[in-house]
Amino acid sequence: MKVTLETGRKSKKEKKSRELGFGNKAYNRETRLINKDGAFNVEKEGQSFWEALDTYHELISMSWGRFFLLITAVFFAINLFFALLYFLAGPAAIEGAQSSSDVNRFLQSFYFSTQTITTVGFGKLNPNSDFVSIVSAFESFLGLLGFALATGLMFARFSRPRKRLVYSNNILISPYQDTNAIMYRFANSGNNQLIEAEVDVVASKWVNEENRRVFERLKLERNKINFFSMSWTIVHPLTKDSPLYGMTLDDMKAQQVEIIAMFKAFDDTYARHIYDRTSFTHAEMLSGKKFIPIYEDQDDDMIHINMEKIGQFEDAFLN
Amino acid sequence: MKVTLETGRKSKKEKKSRELGFGNKAYNRETRLINKDGAFNVEKEGQSFWEALDTYHELISMSWGRFFLLITAVFFAINLFFALLYFLAGPAAIEGAQSSSDVNRFLQSFYFSTQTITTVGFGKLNPNSDFVSIVSAFESFLGLLGFALATGLMFARFSRPRKRLVYSNNILISPYQDTNAIMYRFANSGNNQLIEAEVDVVASKWVNEENRRVFERLKLERNKINFFSMSWTIVHPLTKDSPLYGMTLDDMKAQQVEIIAMFKAFDDTYARHIYDRTSFTHAEMLSGKKFIPIYEDQDDDMIHINMEKIGQFEDAFLN
Amino acid sequence: MKVTLETGRKSKKEKKSRELGFGNKAYNRETRLINKDGAFNVEKEGQSFWEALDTYHELISMSWGRFFLLITAVFFAINLFFALLYFLAGPAAIEGAQSSSDVNRFLQSFYFSTQTITTVGFGKLNPNSDFVSIVSAFESFLGLLGFALATGLMFARFSRPRKRLVYSNNILISPYQDTNAIMYRFANSGNNQLIEAEVDVVASKWVNEENRRVFERLKLERNKINFFSMSWTIVHPLTKDSPLYGMTLDDMKAQQVEIIAMFKAFDDTYARHIYDRTSFTHAEMLSGKKFIPIYEDQDDDMIHINMEKIGQFEDAFLN
Amino acid sequence: MKVTLETGRKSKKEKKSRELGFGNKAYNRETRLINKDGAFNVEKEGQSFWEALDTYHELISMSWGRFFLLITAVFFAINLFFALLYFLAGPAAIEGAQSSSDVNRFLQSFYFSTQTITTVGFGKLNPNSDFVSIVSAFESFLGLLGFALATGLMFARFSRPRKRLVYSNNILISPYQDTNAIMYRFANSGNNQLIEAEVDVVASKWVNEENRRVFERLKLERNKINFFSMSWTIVHPLTKDSPLYGMTLDDMKAQQVEIIAMFKAFDDTYARHIYDRTSFTHAEMLSGKKFIPIYEDQDDDMIHINMEKIGQFEDAFLN
Repeated sequence: MKVTLETGRKSKKEKKSRELGFGNKAYNRETRLINKDGAFNVEKEGQSFWEALDTYHELISMSWGRFFLLITAVFFAINLFFALLYFLAGPAAIEGAQSSSDVNRFLQSFYFSTQTITTVGFGKLNPNSDFVSIVSAFESFLGLLGFALATGLMFARFSRPRKRLVYSNNILISPYQDTNAIMYRFANSGNNQLIEAEVDVVASKWVNEENRRVFERLKLERNKINFFSMSWTIVHPLTKDSPLYGMTLDDMKAQQVEIIAMFKAFDDTYARHIYDRTSFTHAEMLSGKKFIPIYEDQDDDMIHINMEKIGQFEDAFLN
Repeated sequence: MKVTLETGRKSKKEKKSRELGFGNKAYNRETRLINKDGAFNVEKEGQSFWEALDTYHELISMSWGRFFLLITAVFFAINLFFALLYFLAGPAAIEGAQSSSDVNRFLQSFYFSTQTITTVGFGKLNPNSDFVSIVSAFESFLGLLGFALATGLMFARFSRPRKRLVYSNNILISPYQDTNAIMYRFANSGNNQLIEAEVDVVASKWVNEENRRVFERLKLERNKINFFSMSWTIVHPLTKDSPLYGMTLDDMKAQQVEIIAMFKAFDDTYARHIYDRTSFTHAEMLSGKKFIPIYEDQDDDMIHINMEKIGQFEDAFLN
Repeated sequence: MKVTLETGRKSKKEKKSRELGFGNKAYNRETRLINKDGAFNVEKEGQSFWEALDTYHELISMSWGRFFLLITAVFFAINLFFALLYFLAGPAAIEGAQSSSDVNRFLQSFYFSTQTITTVGFGKLNPNSDFVSIVSAFESFLGLLGFALATGLMFARFSRPRKRLVYSNNILISPYQDTNAIMYRFANSGNNQLIEAEVDVVASKWVNEENRRVFERLKLERNKINFFSMSWTIVHPLTKDSPLYGMTLDDMKAQQVEIIAMFKAFDDTYARHIYDRTSFTHAEMLSGKKFIPIYEDQDDDMIHINMEKIGQFEDAFLN
Repeated sequence: MKVTLETGRKSKKEKKSRELGFGNKAYNRETRLINKDGAFNVEKEGQSFWEALDTYHELISMSWGRFFLLITAVFFAINLFFALLYFLAGPAAIEGAQSSSDVNRFLQSFYFSTQTITTVGFGKLNPNSDFVSIVSAFESFLGLLGFALATGLMFARFSRPRKRLVYSNNILISPYQDTNAIMYRFANSGNNQLIEAEVDVVASKWVNEENRRVFERLKLERNKINFFSMSWTIVHPLTKDSPLYGMTLDDMKAQQVEIIAMFKAFDDTYARHIYDRTSFTHAEMLSGKKFIPIYEDQDDDMIHINMEKIGQFEDAFLN
């Protein structure tokens, strides 16, 4: 019997997986749901260019470099446009412009435009016709609005909590108490305090018989701490009730296992909640390794964390 | 015995409905409480114009087009006002203005005003009397404050989470397991991540014998997911304890059924919680239909969602 | 035995009251804890002027009128200061200034200062000495910083949720089911949606035998609703377990009863939580009254609320 | 058997401590985890200078004095840079500059630069070559962006809730009911309301036999209040189940006891949650003392709190 997403009977397992919001029919066997950087591997189609355009999200989440490049390009383009208008208004329209050649006159128009839009208005070049007076009034108004917009965007970018979480590259199967456990380690590399930190870890595997992915939450040794100021090793003990119990690395590969790690905390610097996520695929899983200590003793009263060691491990005998 | 809102005995059912904050005496039989866009169908009266004016809410929630139009209009009006002041100050008040005619002199006054308020201050036109000097000092101060205000408003607009939720136009009665269920589907068309998403669905119907509307929360197959990055089909099984159990579409119409859908999530881009709501009336309810799959297979490792299909359905045999 | 706040045995009642954070030793018999506008009736002393100064809180919470007045005054004062500097720099320091008299020269210095700080810089008046060049560079820099500050403050003021809650002036003792209840009514007069609204009501009375105030939370008919878009009548039934059970208005006065009403909701416009509070003293309590309906029928499909009626009541026979 | 942080068996006690996020292997015997001002005593290493640089956090959390100094220095440096460019462009590049000497010419270039970047643009000095025209267009554009950035930062600084909590310098062992209790007192010295305030207190001590620190949450008389508008004395009764039961001050010293006090509340002025923390070491603990009352009676209807008395205490006989 074919089970579709919208109708039909659902197994208990499927219901559980659905609670995480991952669905289960959307995936090929090899689909990685969440990329290393936390982005979802999803493409939305069937929208027109304008419907799909999420301007604000783009402007807010692009890098600072691209952001400034974009602003500069827009600034340049707008000035070209107004320069053309002033140029077309004729040689007498701008007072103070030496019109030795058309190229020179266009350059003068361009300079006048930049002096207008930035409101610097030196005044050597100044409007000498009604048309130019009105257009330049509008341009300086536009300039101010544009910079107001840029200011708003800049602050919106600033006020978004930046996440400075550094994860270990690998997820390890290490000895743990009488049994083994899978572990990853991460730390906050920034100086901001993360308060009331929580993690939630989900394992996803491909079930061949059912031709679909299932998702199950992993039970953690602990999933909440008051302060996340040092490093944190997340531990899922491989006991009998674990969905990964008894699996070898080869099994993991065969079932295309992906471990999805979710994080939530309150950021004291931004006074906001932050969320983060990453994932580890079977290819990033190592067995019989354990993380080496990240703390270093330096004979003073400080606690020293060496961030370079966040992902470093050594051999360990599994139970 | 007449039961008024403020006094008198209340049935158990009434109490339940009141918990949702909808009251029950305020409605005619045909009143739609919540519009398609989530706005409440409520009008508040008995306030003076100024009391009722919720300037900030207006400025924040109007469209960008209207916002810029309004700002431009205000800019124009203020300049007209100051132009008049400068004009009335007499021909000698502004240096550099050619006073060939009154019209021309007024235009020059207007240009001077725009050059002052935007602080472009070319200087060809410049204040030549104490009156104009003081007024223009004040105008440029006002200009800066005004643009500060505009900047503040622009950012306030930016920092409000935009909801890009797309709902199916219809709410369907579809087969579901051994019974039937009512279902609607929605998706986030934006690129922002919605985390810890929750829905809450309420059915409202007119009870003729009691001459009032009752409201009841509908039990959902699931009402919370970790990530809302794809589409989500909300399912209310029509079991015996459902307030809609056994009703035909005609019953729904007779009782003026309205389904109110509430949504809450944390928006990762804005680092804020967002709330949304919509409603479906009996007229938007279809029976014996089911939604068609929204996922598309494209032989790569991405998950593809076709947003056009969000509201598309096909025939289905009810149980 | 004297019970002090910090040490000694506490009765069960006292513990309860302390959970609300009101203490109980701080009050005279007649102290009103919370004013009508929600401000606490507390004065903090023993801090120096500068310690006590909470600049940001002041700038953020003063009225818009006072805010603009303050900014304008600061603008004027700073210009006076710089005008003095330019004046003292001597007659030749500013090019373009006609120095017919000292008064006139000071005025010209003042105009130059305003043209500099607003960055309008017409240029007729321009710096003609190293001193004035440097000071004016600094002044224009200061001007921009100042307006940046003003912009920041303006937005901080904007982004604070404004509460437009309108409370009934009185708290009524009305008939309710088989018994009576105390009731107050309030509504949101704005257009913003308040979601997941909660109230918490505390009664405080003076206990003569113990020479102190006690506080007790009142049990409400309901204390949470999904949407607060209309009006809401808060009802505390005067059953036997109520701390106000069996009290007459004279008892209330004798015991200096104060009812403290707390409110919390999520504001959809500001995407933030808001809190509000007010209080009713025994003098604002009326017995044998009930609120008149606030909804009005106008033969259309809208729900009409008459805000003028929020506090209006009529006679009612108590049980 | 050596117990490492990442692997090996953990005692029940250790697990508890780990829930607080403090770890236990990172400390020397004498390490103070949290400083008086709430900063963590942690140093993160192994990052390059640029990785470790948390610009935004620095800009947001430095004092206003340092912030303005930094901005001014940047302003000065940028102007020096552009002045150099204009100077190198040759004597004729800037119109209006008197080139009596190279020093004077550089000063004129510097003035021109400041007039450009602040957009004051008096116009006496104005660009007279294509190079200077283009560079100054870019400089004024940069100036506006820079001030937009400054505005954004200023508001980001403004919108961060400032904590004005004043703690007692000492933590006291005072008589309490039939037994004793450890107590500290704190108050909000600002005018902002703190709502739904919560505290959480953890004791940490060095266990010699296990060669590590343990952390245990202390049970409080009450840990949550509705309003934190006055002062609050936090009380941990020294009953048999307290981890500090029966310890003398010498024991505290021997075990290097540190009491960590965490605070959380909603700030009504900023409409945000705030968190604070401080700690008390054994050296700040006094036995046989109690806090003196902080409230003062002044024969009016106000409640008076004397902030100077927040940490003042007197002798008391312990039980």
